[in-house]
Amino acid sequence: MTERIVQTIRTVPLIRDEIAARRAAGATVGFVPTMGALHAGHTALVERAAREHDVVVVSIFVNPAQFNRAEDLEQYPRDEAADVKAAGAAGATICFTPSVTEIYPADFASSVQVRGPLTETLEGQDRGVGHFDGMATVVTILLNIVGADVAYFGAKDAQQALVVQRFVRDLRIPTEIVTSATVRDQDGLALSSRNARLTADGREQALAISAALQAAANAISNGSADSPEAASAAGIDRLRVAGITADYFMIADPLTLEPASQLSGTLLIACAATVDGVRLIDNLTVSANREAATANC
Amino acid sequence: MTERIVQTIRTVPLIRDEIAARRAAGATVGFVPTMGALHAGHTALVERAAREHDVVVVSIFVNPAQFNRAEDLEQYPRDEAADVKAAGAAGATICFTPSVTEIYPADFASSVQVRGPLTETLEGQDRGVGHFDGMATVVTILLNIVGADVAYFGAKDAQQALVVQRFVRDLRIPTEIVTSATVRDQDGLALSSRNARLTADGREQALAISAALQAAANAISNGSADSPEAASAAGIDRLRVAGITADYFMIADPLTLEPASQLSGTLLIACAATVDGVRLIDNLTVSANREAATANC
Repeated sequence: MTERIVQTIRTVPLIRDEIAARRAAGATVGFVPTMGALHAGHTALVERAAREHDVVVVSIFVNPAQFNRAEDLEQYPRDEAADVKAAGAAGATICFTPSVTEIYPADFASSVQVRGPLTETLEGQDRGVGHFDGMATVVTILLNIVGADVAYFGAKDAQQALVVQRFVRDLRIPTEIVTSATVRDQDGLALSSRNARLTADGREQALAISAALQAAANAISNGSADSPEAASAAGIDRLRVAGITADYFMIADPLTLEPASQLSGTLLIACAATVDGVRLIDNLTVSANREAATANC
Repeated sequence: MTERIVQTIRTVPLIRDEIAARRAAGATVGFVPTMGALHAGHTALVERAAREHDVVVVSIFVNPAQFNRAEDLEQYPRDEAADVKAAGAAGATICFTPSVTEIYPADFASSVQVRGPLTETLEGQDRGVGHFDGMATVVTILLNIVGADVAYFGAKDAQQALVVQRFVRDLRIPTEIVTSATVRDQDGLALSSRNARLTADGREQALAISAALQAAANAISNGSADSPEAASAAGIDRLRVAGITADYFMIADPLTLEPASQLSGTLLIACAATVDGVRLIDNLTVSANREAATANC
């Protein structure tokens, strides 16, 4: 196995020059923005980008603007050397690791915002809409710096991916946004950089989140739930057994995130809960049987 | 004189294809965003863009999002055929004339904002900061659609040009922003699409605006004013003689727009006033004699 050479670049002019040189030589560019702490969910995105593009840029930037709690920002895991190694092994050609002041100079005053149901429900209701303002602003900056053909996001952060797709479309940012399936451990736990902060007992308890989503999905698929409320109740029951109170457990339209009013079409089941002091999110997409749902109404 | 062929394009995919084809053939691209009603101020920008680039795109789009009064939006002059002709005569190669729904589809939900003194003073205080949100959002969209090397803005809208420079820098939009000098009629009136709405008497009265700016600039240059307040008073006096009460008359830092605390360095003198029912703005930049100013303190 040949070792790939990963270049680490910390400034905007240098990465722009490097990408311009690669483009001049005919390369296409894929981009995976991350906050570091890379796990198999990230590396799956990098591997896909490497299959589809000549140059793969992975950004590693813990964005202060999208944390609503200073404590959460402080505790966010950071290990640049390990991240660069993991990105390279997955096929990255360039790691972009800017400082906070490289992205936000002293008199930085701009922001990108998405308003409406897409940012006001779920994480927006729970963490405040400012979380998405911070995310949208830094993703805009990174997309504009890298100028990739395609940028890759994980489906685990379903709402984040939808918000990115919306402002990229609205503001006509010339990069295609692709969402890739959530990567899970064998026992179902969705991979997250935050999982590293779980104790063994906490990790066991956290399995109830994916199990609860699956319980709600099953209730929809097998027709035992006749309404979004009934399907949610099946999930919430499963969480209760594990001693977990969800921040939210919601069945929603997978594109607008508005609460589903009936069980038909494709539905997103989304959950957030704090387990063992660690806030976790997960979601599933399920196809409701329209005829059965209609018959049950 | 050879007549230039101006292409009129109304949709985003078509203009992107056209620009991509020109770029593939090695062309550089200059861009002049306008709200139509082209006058010699606009055509001076187009002429400069044509001197500096192979392809010159002029957008003509009256942006509903940056009008704070429905009446002002409705009264804004529109004559596309005349505008396309004027743009072509000045050297434009492509006129981009999208519909409102082409720019803002039904579920449009995004915005670009600049906060701080730059948007909160002058026009921001007077018309509301939403005016700049609307402007910043549409300029971001247009810059992303056209992907020009350089975009040209007029110095008459000094605050607008500064806001554009700020979010383009902050969000790393890869287009250079150039500000070109205000074009004036021989009697000093700054060209504006709104001038067409002035009666003959109103136009005569409006001359007091540029005269007032010049009076304040003279008071600074010749040392008769020993403070920003004294210089402003010279300008406001000149307006009062003409029966005009300014919405604002301010001496400010030309980069941050914060009120000048002393007469030193380069200063921006900015004024807005409603004359004959038409709201007009204008500004001048003046270099204060630091030694004289210091001696007078």
